Amino acid sequence: MKVVVWNEYRHERQAETVTKLYPDGIHGAIKAGLAAHGIAADAATLDEPEHGLPAARLDQTDVLFWWGHRAHAEVDDAVVERVQRRVLAGMGLVVLHSGHHSKIFRRLMGTSCNLVWRVAPNGERERLWPIDPGHALAAGIGPCIELPASEMYGEPFDVPAPDELVFISWYQGGEVFRSGCCYRRGRGRIFYFSPGHETYPIYHEPAIQQVLANAARWAAAPHADGSRLDVQNRREPLERLD
Amino acid sequence: MKVVVWNEYRHERQAETVTKLYPDGIHGAIKAGLAAHGIAADAATLDEPEHGLPAARLDQTDVLFWWGHRAHAEVDDAVVERVQRRVLAGMGLVVLHSGHHSKIFRRLMGTSCNLVWRVAPNGERERLWPIDPGHALAAGIGPCIELPASEMYGEPFDVPAPDELVFISWYQGGEVFRSGCCYRRGRGRIFYFSPGHETYPIYHEPAIQQVLANAARWAAAPHADGSRLDVQNRREPLERLD
Amino acid sequence: MKVVVWNEYRHERQAETVTKLYPDGIHGAIKAGLAAHGIAADAATLDEPEHGLPAARLDQTDVLFWWGHRAHAEVDDAVVERVQRRVLAGMGLVVLHSGHHSKIFRRLMGTSCNLVWRVAPNGERERLWPIDPGHALAAGIGPCIELPASEMYGEPFDVPAPDELVFISWYQGGEVFRSGCCYRRGRGRIFYFSPGHETYPIYHEPAIQQVLANAARWAAAPHADGSRLDVQNRREPLERLD
Amino acid sequence: MKVVVWNEYRHERQAETVTKLYPDGIHGAIKAGLAAHGIAADAATLDEPEHGLPAARLDQTDVLFWWGHRAHAEVDDAVVERVQRRVLAGMGLVVLHSGHHSKIFRRLMGTSCNLVWRVAPNGERERLWPIDPGHALAAGIGPCIELPASEMYGEPFDVPAPDELVFISWYQGGEVFRSGCCYRRGRGRIFYFSPGHETYPIYHEPAIQQVLANAARWAAAPHADGSRLDVQNRREPLERLD
Repeated sequence: MKVVVWNEYRHERQAETVTKLYPDGIHGAIKAGLAAHGIAADAATLDEPEHGLPAARLDQTDVLFWWGHRAHAEVDDAVVERVQRRVLAGMGLVVLHSGHHSKIFRRLMGTSCNLVWRVAPNGERERLWPIDPGHALAAGIGPCIELPASEMYGEPFDVPAPDELVFISWYQGGEVFRSGCCYRRGRGRIFYFSPGHETYPIYHEPAIQQVLANAARWAAAPHADGSRLDVQNRREPLERLD
Repeated sequence: MKVVVWNEYRHERQAETVTKLYPDGIHGAIKAGLAAHGIAADAATLDEPEHGLPAARLDQTDVLFWWGHRAHAEVDDAVVERVQRRVLAGMGLVVLHSGHHSKIFRRLMGTSCNLVWRVAPNGERERLWPIDPGHALAAGIGPCIELPASEMYGEPFDVPAPDELVFISWYQGGEVFRSGCCYRRGRGRIFYFSPGHETYPIYHEPAIQQVLANAARWAAAPHADGSRLDVQNRREPLERLD
Repeated sequence: MKVVVWNEYRHERQAETVTKLYPDGIHGAIKAGLAAHGIAADAATLDEPEHGLPAARLDQTDVLFWWGHRAHAEVDDAVVERVQRRVLAGMGLVVLHSGHHSKIFRRLMGTSCNLVWRVAPNGERERLWPIDPGHALAAGIGPCIELPASEMYGEPFDVPAPDELVFISWYQGGEVFRSGCCYRRGRGRIFYFSPGHETYPIYHEPAIQQVLANAARWAAAPHADGSRLDVQNRREPLERLD
Repeated sequence: MKVVVWNEYRHERQAETVTKLYPDGIHGAIKAGLAAHGIAADAATLDEPEHGLPAARLDQTDVLFWWGHRAHAEVDDAVVERVQRRVLAGMGLVVLHSGHHSKIFRRLMGTSCNLVWRVAPNGERERLWPIDPGHALAAGIGPCIELPASEMYGEPFDVPAPDELVFISWYQGGEVFRSGCCYRRGRGRIFYFSPGHETYPIYHEPAIQQVLANAARWAAAPHADGSRLDVQNRREPLERLD
């Protein structure tokens, strides 16, 4: 399984508080979390040529993680199109937190992907409830994941109804959110997972790392080859019509 | 539109606090709420012959509301079967609160319909968030419905994934719940709506009454006749096989 | 209910066989079919300024029908974006036949919308089976719709799994197709309906006209207002965190 | 992975044509097909004590296949209840062909599970189209599975909309059918697969055996433990309410 963690990688280089939380970048923390579950991953970042995602690399990738926030607009449309094609061809995609507004997620969803949000300098408590405890995404998770400080994301979340809804979040401030959403698009699987603001140490949480490892395995599940039918030759007789 | 509100009608006759809250029975409050939206409804109760649901009456019913709690086991299996058949034939069914454990709901769902619950003598604050604000069930509802005192129902809720999820609840105590779930079964539509414990005045809340009126209209939506094909006679030729 | 039928309107002006079948344009036939069910509609076509879809007109439109085929690429991206926004804001959209490859449908689906297709100069028999006979889209339709000559569209059809699947087609040549697919996106409803090639008189068929009338009514169903919560002010206390 | 193939096992002992096709019973053919894909399975049959499904055995079973036809009514309700509980607790269930009318399938679906059917002594051609070629159930299957002689099952098929629809069948006689349907119920996965009449050698077909092996692996996918929350103790403070 070939996993690539894509990160915008700007906050960590520009804001001291973020640098302290994520000295190896958010991608570094995600990679470390996956490694703790036996999953090797590489990184790619916005400021590399082709954002680190040349076609030859994407073609070899089974699962792509995506973390972006303030620089969505800087992502080249050609790369977005390339990622979309790879997802439809079977690559898994795990979109994290503020990636809800990334070009790639909006393009794959077809909706605005807007949500409700509030300023809360110190964050607030979030609880993620697995509503489908038998789902592969919830493996190894207890009755809920509690995050002492998180950024509230609220409903309505303008996405298509997920093909499988796995997590719903509770926020101390009074809101709920569909925080773990599965989609199938083409031959690819997409998982959106909302926790993970850059100013909280959420990607160091073991339970969050467990979900990310589950996501990698789920999104990379082996797919059928399903070659196209030669419909010109294998059809029933049509002559009766003429 | 012919609406029947079925109520177990035991708490109201046995517990003084409930009698005070619902002097005309829970069915009376639900009927009054529907009437406020221009929908006439009749009542049926457990202790009537055939629980007030003889076949001739059910056959004329477009939408049946169901409130039961402590006497689920007393509901006759023959009546349950009859209601199930009517739902599959096109009657709408709105299952309320503790009706999640009613025979009819469990039979139509095929699952245990278990949920998580806690003792909280004075209840706690509940907020119902419409996650699909364009849905007919959420018509006329603002950004959320707030109930000052409600009984917590928590996840996992062991039901099939709803065909349409409309409301998610937030509870002060830290849980979430899929509180408004739409199902299509046969030609019938089913809506499960969780608020409504007998010791809280929830069915007197205007916003709750709005949802119940929405539910009646949604569940009674006109359906196609869709008569069966005479497959013995309208088929393509099969002779080539012989 | 304000309905606009958008048509590319090229085939009818360029190919004599199409002109004969649809002397008033495909939009004219669709309008006539809707009128037979009491639904007034206007038309808009590709070669009008802004393709006949200026913002002021779209803002007043409840349901937009879309028929395009060979000139998808000529549709201006700004108009596509405008239509998408209106759908997400609640306008219904009915996409017909070769419109599966229109910019607007692909954008709303997020997938390639590819399908399998074959050359068959005289077409072949198609049968559309309503698999959910109680669905509003199937109202008034018998056990199946039979079209003596139609263009085959086959699986796999690269779209998201429909929120509601209403029709499945059988083709004489040996294929099947999900020919009637419902989607909810934002506050809008989208219906894709596959029959309707320009060289067959399919839009003159009463059963097809019935489905199109059903589609107009379904896609224009009244929606909630659902104004946004002022989350900065109506929250639970967060002070405990600090 | 512990797999049990349950078979009614009556036709094979009573009708010579069936005995010839399935000398080791339908369960024998299914077991052989699974073995060809490296999956060991045991059998259980109706006329054994407890139908071969005592609680201790079911508790150890990961996936149960179910083939029944004429003796559905003879299956003991206590065993049906036991199987249902095991499915909700996480056991996979693969229901085959006429098993659509089995007590266990109807109970888990909550609907009549009726379908349209016709007498055709020599059967007719069936083609199963994978509409989701990336799905695990379609792994190793080409563009379609063609069966020269099969029994027609037609729509409407009165089941809940499948959580994932994988196969749609085309029949020579003019019908379609949702022939491969996935459901999640509780922590269990259910797959309904329609081909397999006792008078056709369908379970000897390599492509059908491939799907059954796919089904075993899919239905046995590892599940989370998801222990229950102690809601009495881990809640947010409620005191503010009192």
